[in-house]
Amino acid sequence: MPNTTWTRHHILSLADFTTVEYDTVLQTAASFQEVLSRRTKKVPTLQGQVVANLFFEPSTRTRSSFELAAKRLSADTLNFASGTSSMTKGETILDTAKTYLAMGTDIMVIRHREAGVPNAIAQEMDRLGVHVSVLNAGDGQHEHPSQALLDLFTICTLLDPDNPRVELLKDKKIAIVGDILHSRVARSNIWSFTACGADVHLAAPPTLLPKLFADYGEDRPGKVFLHWELEPALQDADFVMTLRLQKERMTAHLLPSLREYHQMFGITRSKLQLCKPNVKVLHPGPVNRGVEISSELMDDPEFSLIQAQVTSGVAVRMALLYLIGSGKS
Amino acid sequence: MPNTTWTRHHILSLADFTTVEYDTVLQTAASFQEVLSRRTKKVPTLQGQVVANLFFEPSTRTRSSFELAAKRLSADTLNFASGTSSMTKGETILDTAKTYLAMGTDIMVIRHREAGVPNAIAQEMDRLGVHVSVLNAGDGQHEHPSQALLDLFTICTLLDPDNPRVELLKDKKIAIVGDILHSRVARSNIWSFTACGADVHLAAPPTLLPKLFADYGEDRPGKVFLHWELEPALQDADFVMTLRLQKERMTAHLLPSLREYHQMFGITRSKLQLCKPNVKVLHPGPVNRGVEISSELMDDPEFSLIQAQVTSGVAVRMALLYLIGSGKS
Amino acid sequence: MPNTTWTRHHILSLADFTTVEYDTVLQTAASFQEVLSRRTKKVPTLQGQVVANLFFEPSTRTRSSFELAAKRLSADTLNFASGTSSMTKGETILDTAKTYLAMGTDIMVIRHREAGVPNAIAQEMDRLGVHVSVLNAGDGQHEHPSQALLDLFTICTLLDPDNPRVELLKDKKIAIVGDILHSRVARSNIWSFTACGADVHLAAPPTLLPKLFADYGEDRPGKVFLHWELEPALQDADFVMTLRLQKERMTAHLLPSLREYHQMFGITRSKLQLCKPNVKVLHPGPVNRGVEISSELMDDPEFSLIQAQVTSGVAVRMALLYLIGSGKS
Repeated sequence: MPNTTWTRHHILSLADFTTVEYDTVLQTAASFQEVLSRRTKKVPTLQGQVVANLFFEPSTRTRSSFELAAKRLSADTLNFASGTSSMTKGETILDTAKTYLAMGTDIMVIRHREAGVPNAIAQEMDRLGVHVSVLNAGDGQHEHPSQALLDLFTICTLLDPDNPRVELLKDKKIAIVGDILHSRVARSNIWSFTACGADVHLAAPPTLLPKLFADYGEDRPGKVFLHWELEPALQDADFVMTLRLQKERMTAHLLPSLREYHQMFGITRSKLQLCKPNVKVLHPGPVNRGVEISSELMDDPEFSLIQAQVTSGVAVRMALLYLIGSGKS
Repeated sequence: MPNTTWTRHHILSLADFTTVEYDTVLQTAASFQEVLSRRTKKVPTLQGQVVANLFFEPSTRTRSSFELAAKRLSADTLNFASGTSSMTKGETILDTAKTYLAMGTDIMVIRHREAGVPNAIAQEMDRLGVHVSVLNAGDGQHEHPSQALLDLFTICTLLDPDNPRVELLKDKKIAIVGDILHSRVARSNIWSFTACGADVHLAAPPTLLPKLFADYGEDRPGKVFLHWELEPALQDADFVMTLRLQKERMTAHLLPSLREYHQMFGITRSKLQLCKPNVKVLHPGPVNRGVEISSELMDDPEFSLIQAQVTSGVAVRMALLYLIGSGKS
Repeated sequence: MPNTTWTRHHILSLADFTTVEYDTVLQTAASFQEVLSRRTKKVPTLQGQVVANLFFEPSTRTRSSFELAAKRLSADTLNFASGTSSMTKGETILDTAKTYLAMGTDIMVIRHREAGVPNAIAQEMDRLGVHVSVLNAGDGQHEHPSQALLDLFTICTLLDPDNPRVELLKDKKIAIVGDILHSRVARSNIWSFTACGADVHLAAPPTLLPKLFADYGEDRPGKVFLHWELEPALQDADFVMTLRLQKERMTAHLLPSLREYHQMFGITRSKLQLCKPNVKVLHPGPVNRGVEISSELMDDPEFSLIQAQVTSGVAVRMALLYLIGSGKS
């Protein structure tokens, strides 16, 4: 593992992440990516520690990724899913978290449909003076830091497999396309990409891209640009990040038909001709094939990084659990 | 681990537990509490054994506590939850248990909404002449032994952290307040506290506290007293145990409004002035804040043992799994 | 473990299994059965590998059996259950499988209510040139290979505990009774029993036993016979395999009442008098007591192999995971 001076105790938001922190995550994840290429893909780093996945909003994909990351660090895992839980009995979320604390949890991985829940739990843990760490695995429309970090790692690893690092993103153009308004992934991506010096071009229908998103780029090395059409965002882009479209949005009259949406903002191989020749496409998954992205493009290894993102996810989550967990007694 | 002559094969009820058995549980749990303070909180005691959590009634909290206890003893765990299971396909409960037996389960931790199910399964296992142990994790309104044992351990550890033991409870006054009638926790608590020489004062509205509860104290070192008002139960009490109020009880016309209930039987800091100066409050969780107990009292470390109970739970469950499981071949 | 030249990468169907392959499974399972009789029932064979149980159709029993088999080989396990998953978000099954592939899964155990899903996933994995193995844990009304292999192992182990092997089945008569039409278990059983030289006698009402089943025995060492009455199937049978009756079949007018069905095709101790003196009864579970089989017969150790089947299941599934998984890098 890289020699590091990591001091961050919780991972809640990327808004104030420093380039030194991004570089530490990238280097640590690269070390674990190497571990994952061995025959025995486990290390004893977190043996005897407990990682509790507290998922108040269901997600098999992200939960499995965190669970596998924890198991490969030899931690014990506990899974909490609301619905079968005492949440239905009226207990507060903070009480649930304190119960898992009292059982001996070292790291809480928290997903909740309301923004701010992981922060509130982290504050309460700090107030109590306990050593448990909180990792935000997606809170409402606020942030999804581990997803944005795996996106960053996927891109940097492509640019330099031997030494993924922040400076590789300098002056790159990254288009983020789709339902920006409701996307916690997009918000975390904007923080990380602009901090690393990439310019972020957001493209979406006006109903899904309010003007206030321009503020995200203020005083940061990379800038944020807003487009209510797809083409200027794709023009000379190095990377295109598509976002999942919640089909419920249509019923809220924020969108025309899915077919019309795909025609205007769906990414296809022909639309990619506007981009740089080596352009790559990312998507946080799960994908609505033929809506955000054409089915053939999704499966085309020349363009799609979607599978690489999932693989990076385990290495990056191992890195995050390691960085916030390895100092535990 | 303490040198012990433990012979009990199943843990189904505390009605006939001896003080020697209580002392063995307390000492064994204390040993595991010490393990849990180490950096690596695992011991290889039950390696290669299988603990199956058969929860026919959902409970994340108790299931997680047993699962963690089993993992810290290095056992493999299987989780069964009815609903996603072949129970919905018409299989009997005994057949489900026998299936887990045939797979190679060593210890079955069983929760069911009907009283007597763990006993029936234990009897069937004994009839079959197999070595599997059954641990009652809550059956209907009958018993919840591991909860009462963790309450006992929490109290005794507070009274003498270095040597928790039965005799510490002699002549203590313990108030149990709330829905006694429907509480399996209360029944198990009454058995353990009176066996250890504490006097138990039950307080609840008449609809939730039938007179037959007076019989629980017959021929035991500690006595049982019934009160249909709160004050005489709290007077000079050393410990106050509050019970969860099932809100469904109101619809069954057993209760006035929650607000009225809280005024009459809810525990607050001011009501505690009737008790001994060092009084402590317990609750099996999950708590309805502002109903059984005021929110500020619940969070007050001077009075509340609620978090300590959860922590004790893992150590006590490790002790129980160890005691009934360590003799397995 | 037996010295073997196993080359099959996926286990999807028994239609083309060779007797050499059956013998390898039987010998390997016998080795693991021995491991399971030790005090520590684990081996490090698959340490660092990941077995993902992708159960698109719920099943606690089969999932627990595979999970325990994987854990006893020291693999890490991931459980996917549709319902709480992104399947509800519109992701395709192939995309779900590819996500678990990208996370680093080595073996996928797949159950789905549609026939052919495990095959489709295996084909996609081969097309991608990846080393992941697929194990069919039941697909629609198509096949359930691990169930049929554990049935085979149970029977052969009974006939020669020290050396279970294919030739023991030669010229045996095996009756399969019940809802043949809708049973994936029956189809896999027919393939394995006829390949091993046993004659299979199918018995069911005409609505549940179409004539095309006679074709299953073509060009195989053992033959298939169809009976629309129970008695000729039972006459001199060595083994009687009963199938689970889906009660939904009645509402589809395929069956008379359950009581009438039990009278005609339910297996009882008195009906077994038609069979060989040492006849044994099997059932894949879960059992509808008093429908497919009388309750007293199910619990009679002189006749019933039902518990032995469950025990065999763990050893056979360990063997299958070992055979397809041990060559992984």
